[in-house]
Amino acid sequence: MVFIAFEGGDGAGKTTQIELLRVRLVDAGYDVVVTREPGGTPLGESIRAVLLHGDHVAPRAEALLFAADRAHHVATVVRPALARGAVVLQDRYVDSSVAYQGAGRELDPADIKGLSMWATEGLLPDLTVLLDVTPEVGRARRGAVHDRLESEQDDFHARVREHYRDLAASSAERYLVIDASLPAEEIAAIVADRVEPV
Amino acid sequence: MVFIAFEGGDGAGKTTQIELLRVRLVDAGYDVVVTREPGGTPLGESIRAVLLHGDHVAPRAEALLFAADRAHHVATVVRPALARGAVVLQDRYVDSSVAYQGAGRELDPADIKGLSMWATEGLLPDLTVLLDVTPEVGRARRGAVHDRLESEQDDFHARVREHYRDLAASSAERYLVIDASLPAEEIAAIVADRVEPV
Repeated sequence: MVFIAFEGGDGAGKTTQIELLRVRLVDAGYDVVVTREPGGTPLGESIRAVLLHGDHVAPRAEALLFAADRAHHVATVVRPALARGAVVLQDRYVDSSVAYQGAGRELDPADIKGLSMWATEGLLPDLTVLLDVTPEVGRARRGAVHDRLESEQDDFHARVREHYRDLAASSAERYLVIDASLPAEEIAAIVADRVEPV
Repeated sequence: MVFIAFEGGDGAGKTTQIELLRVRLVDAGYDVVVTREPGGTPLGESIRAVLLHGDHVAPRAEALLFAADRAHHVATVVRPALARGAVVLQDRYVDSSVAYQGAGRELDPADIKGLSMWATEGLLPDLTVLLDVTPEVGRARRGAVHDRLESEQDDFHARVREHYRDLAASSAERYLVIDASLPAEEIAAIVADRVEPV
């Protein structure tokens, strides 16, 4: 039972790396569960629909909805998978909430973390793979159009990146930080080397 | 700007008392907003639909969904109404979460209260009217059918009632506790007497 989270800004290549690691682990005979937040359960999809329904959502309500999705997802998907001995590879977890909502400046990152810890009864990943991407590379990979909001968006993504790097630095033994601009195969090899002993 | 919450078990007569007080206050020239939880906003209705969608919802996810509804409702309905000087009469608030989820025994009532305090940035009612109803009276008023679950339901409602009474006893100056088996007009007169100085 190993729980590995993949984190990083949009365009960091998480989906690709999760798939490469999944194939490698399945080939090695492991039971592997790939999942993601938000979503990942029917209730999660409903919550996701509520979050994206277009109208204004009060910032604290949004944070609580993400935490509710996480609580249900951990209780009904992640913990049962870990209990039967599976390896769980998850696209985004607590750090995403802390980094994105913290970078949004409206809420205290420590509060966001506290909500998630309560929601999950303290479940932390055994390893978090942080695909560290600069705003410029992330933007190029996302294929975002150039417009007058671009520099503001870059500022936001730069704050997200700083939050991620601070989180990784604060408990380095639980993180693997990789330069996301490296070739995908090279990143996959680094991930595999680190995951093997875990 | 006065914020009054009405609490009590199902069948306690909250709806009737809120309406009687609303009419009295409007006749006296006040701007009165009547609202309720869960629901009360379009987002709240969506959350309510998620909560009632029938499938299993993990207990912490449920608590977080109620808190999300409350966060949005307070930010977009209650605080704006209070800010313009209105009297807000609300059917169920924080105490309902504490009493019902606490009586469910799965979660710590102090945690439930903490979530609501974070969700609302600490907004407490100026006065809470607790319509104190015994399980027997509540059952009769709800018109529940007699079945083999009845005594179990009575136990649950008895625990809810105890939670409510404990909350009222712990800060008596913020509560008005009334025997809900009294005639509605008599209750309305007691409420009006207490609300007048507030």
